Amino acid sequence: MNGAESLVKTLALNGIEVCFTNPGTSEMHFMAALDRTNALRCVLGLQENIVTGAADGYARMAEKPAATLLHLGPGLGNGLANLHNANKAGTGIVNIVGDHATYHIEFDAPLTADVEGIAAPVSNWVKTSPTADGVAADGAESVRQAMTHPGRIATLILPANTAWGDGAEPVKAATPNSPTGPSEAAVEAAAKALSSGEPAALYLKGNVLREPGLTLAGKIAAKTGARLLAPTSNARIDRGAGRVPVERVPYVVAQAMDRLAPLKHLVGIGDKEPVAFFAYPDKPSRVLPDSCAPQLLCGEDEDGVRALEMLCDALDAHNAVPELAEGRANEGLPDGALDQDKIAAAFSSLLPEGAIVIDESISSGRQLNWQTAGAAPHSWLSLCGGSIGAGLPLATGAGIACPDRPIVALEGDGSAMYTIQALWTQARENLNVTTVIYANRSYAILQGEMSAVGVEDPGKVAQDMFNIDRPTLDFVSIARGMGADGERVDDAGDFAKALERGMATPGPYVIEAVI
Amino acid sequence: MNGAESLVKTLALNGIEVCFTNPGTSEMHFMAALDRTNALRCVLGLQENIVTGAADGYARMAEKPAATLLHLGPGLGNGLANLHNANKAGTGIVNIVGDHATYHIEFDAPLTADVEGIAAPVSNWVKTSPTADGVAADGAESVRQAMTHPGRIATLILPANTAWGDGAEPVKAATPNSPTGPSEAAVEAAAKALSSGEPAALYLKGNVLREPGLTLAGKIAAKTGARLLAPTSNARIDRGAGRVPVERVPYVVAQAMDRLAPLKHLVGIGDKEPVAFFAYPDKPSRVLPDSCAPQLLCGEDEDGVRALEMLCDALDAHNAVPELAEGRANEGLPDGALDQDKIAAAFSSLLPEGAIVIDESISSGRQLNWQTAGAAPHSWLSLCGGSIGAGLPLATGAGIACPDRPIVALEGDGSAMYTIQALWTQARENLNVTTVIYANRSYAILQGEMSAVGVEDPGKVAQDMFNIDRPTLDFVSIARGMGADGERVDDAGDFAKALERGMATPGPYVIEAVI
Repeated sequence: MNGAESLVKTLALNGIEVCFTNPGTSEMHFMAALDRTNALRCVLGLQENIVTGAADGYARMAEKPAATLLHLGPGLGNGLANLHNANKAGTGIVNIVGDHATYHIEFDAPLTADVEGIAAPVSNWVKTSPTADGVAADGAESVRQAMTHPGRIATLILPANTAWGDGAEPVKAATPNSPTGPSEAAVEAAAKALSSGEPAALYLKGNVLREPGLTLAGKIAAKTGARLLAPTSNARIDRGAGRVPVERVPYVVAQAMDRLAPLKHLVGIGDKEPVAFFAYPDKPSRVLPDSCAPQLLCGEDEDGVRALEMLCDALDAHNAVPELAEGRANEGLPDGALDQDKIAAAFSSLLPEGAIVIDESISSGRQLNWQTAGAAPHSWLSLCGGSIGAGLPLATGAGIACPDRPIVALEGDGSAMYTIQALWTQARENLNVTTVIYANRSYAILQGEMSAVGVEDPGKVAQDMFNIDRPTLDFVSIARGMGADGERVDDAGDFAKALERGMATPGPYVIEAVI
Repeated sequence: MNGAESLVKTLALNGIEVCFTNPGTSEMHFMAALDRTNALRCVLGLQENIVTGAADGYARMAEKPAATLLHLGPGLGNGLANLHNANKAGTGIVNIVGDHATYHIEFDAPLTADVEGIAAPVSNWVKTSPTADGVAADGAESVRQAMTHPGRIATLILPANTAWGDGAEPVKAATPNSPTGPSEAAVEAAAKALSSGEPAALYLKGNVLREPGLTLAGKIAAKTGARLLAPTSNARIDRGAGRVPVERVPYVVAQAMDRLAPLKHLVGIGDKEPVAFFAYPDKPSRVLPDSCAPQLLCGEDEDGVRALEMLCDALDAHNAVPELAEGRANEGLPDGALDQDKIAAAFSSLLPEGAIVIDESISSGRQLNWQTAGAAPHSWLSLCGGSIGAGLPLATGAGIACPDRPIVALEGDGSAMYTIQALWTQARENLNVTTVIYANRSYAILQGEMSAVGVEDPGKVAQDMFNIDRPTLDFVSIARGMGADGERVDDAGDFAKALERGMATPGPYVIEAVI
């Protein structure tokens, strides 16, 4: 078999099942190997940020990496922003990036680029596989890297002659290193802080925001009175009625400081402390009060669940009964002119059990978090790297991973336009994704941010760059052009019906919610 | 004034007139400075590959750089592919990339990334401006870099506190180094080769493909019998009836080798020799015959026009009369079922004088080159870096540079979907761009490439990745959703009418040409 086939078989042998791709000429032998072996499910995206964002969404739900197949340096470049987002989410991905044959590089043909240089800023591991007989081993290592806790971005560059040359047999990957728990001393210090009687919190990041971590954290909270906090944006929180609720730190600096002000102790798992998303001239980067000394119980590459178990041991909390989120009171569905609150109310009432929520609602959805605390149990996936355009691709990948769970993507209109082409892949794969677009016709967040950095009353030039109302975007028309159905609503009752319709209908559905 | 204002004023002082942008929080002070000073025209793109591609198209037509304003590392990443294309085209661009305040970097907030690392593979010059009082000088240097022949990508990273801190006065840039001509010895060797009586060619790349270079090259051809060749893809060729015609080297390796086979001498200006776009298992990277020794008369950073003048001197060719392209015979407009040839025929007949053609037609448009040789005089801009998704942004930027020239973008359907959001900017700026989409419902080029790399009869998996017909893309619906008008045609007569309508109508017009 050739190098490409040895690599495809190696990926499959080591548990990779899906390859998100937009291939080109330099990937043709890899494509042919996928074709011959039928070893991976191939999913096409019309632009590479769809491809990489879908791989992120897939891994967050499947709890294992997907592969991507990308076309040389520029194809990787097109997918860079969602690899950045995936990297910040702690997602594992195996990128296979085709390149020119090694002997062709010196001719500086149009697509020649520094692929390793482009990959490095968003990858935890990068390697160019120089020979066909070594690529299976490199592929096995790339899977091991991607599967290393909490998940790493591994980028394997595949020159065309590595793909078409004679390859070795598929290689079984070494077992990824198991993450270790914290030291006894760190656990003891954390237990002391949490049981001090002073206001304290556990700050949770990563896979501790699903079971069994949530229940362990809930027991610790019940035993000690500590609050449970999480970052503003998280790869995945499992939440809703009957689950241990976790409070997310607000995005707005003043609000975050307000909420954290009472704390004397913060014990971090997966991250030391919350910080401001941006710097502002008159605001601090750190949002904890000076009186609170944060302590890191375990870093993101350590075993957070084990840390919680050890903490339960130290606090004798295993038999404590966690407080669980109550179900939402039935308030009926909203009516009248649509606004953000009514969207949140309808959404919270109608969300079915097991739904996956993708949240890239940016400014419009800030009240959603607390309003959905008592909705039916669901998974909540956020934009973790701050680079907008992740939402529709994340929904696409989540749909590939969990075909039986309804998916709702909450999108700002500005964010949705970044990767709107994902709707086509959703239609092609018949994914049950309902996308709610908050059509406020602007980058509304920037209105607030401009004031936050100290500029009041922006003039015409700035307003022009914040408003995307000229011309008005018609998302229903765009969606139909890509094979997805949808409707525009400006009434709360119509919104609720549209949402029910979208979730009940197979395939993608776009709701342009005019607010 | 603050650093941001000193930078805006420095850009304007040094001749920058347009800023293509998609800004975010870290760019708010720069935005406010643009607002206060009104010193640059701001053009918004809905995704950064629109922004960078438009800057490329603008510079190719305006013959001067534009600025871009991008949001941290991921925003730059979104625009990386079209910066790669611009770099390969020899285009000058000044990228201003916002970043976190310098003191905020250590907190590793979500958008923190290695901005310099992301910029380096596509930039000729990269600098982070650490202090507000130095940013005007850095800005002046970035403009000088971008204006350095033939045009360079200069990336200036602007931390938020550099923008909001107290800045210095605007700085006048040093004059870019003038490119020098070749040595007398190189000219003599070139003259000897061209006048040897053996088959010879001038291989022209860069600004010699417009006046005065074309006429000088035509005189040399008339005097010596040398052929005039250019790369397959060029930043800009001015061509059509009454202009000196230049033969482009075909993309397909066998065809290129065939056309070059007779040559004994090749004199390169701006590039040494044509090479294969990709490597293939059984084909060479070099396409010149072994019997032809190429000689580089002048590199891309040297003065090609001066080289041609010196060559005219050496050959005593100043009074030679160049052969000019004849006007196209009036063959009438085609009718019947639409195909690639009929598109080419209608297009060639109807193209108005002074039109700008953007060619990203990939496989569908390969016959366009010779069929349009006798069309009314026009400028022809190609995808130079091979990363599809440049066409609609290039058209957008060309429209900003030349509001009075009609623009026709020829697009593959696969390519068009990469940056389809550009239609919105075209509508917003009321640019007279007619986009012809060759709707063959596939990445047709990959069908041929798979065979070229030695794989025959691709199976279902590969075919699925080449065909984008499931679901069918409705480009008219997509265009309308972004505020652009259009129509779908499958008849040649209707196509001709649609093309006339599109070019005569202000604002963007999309023709989905079903073939």
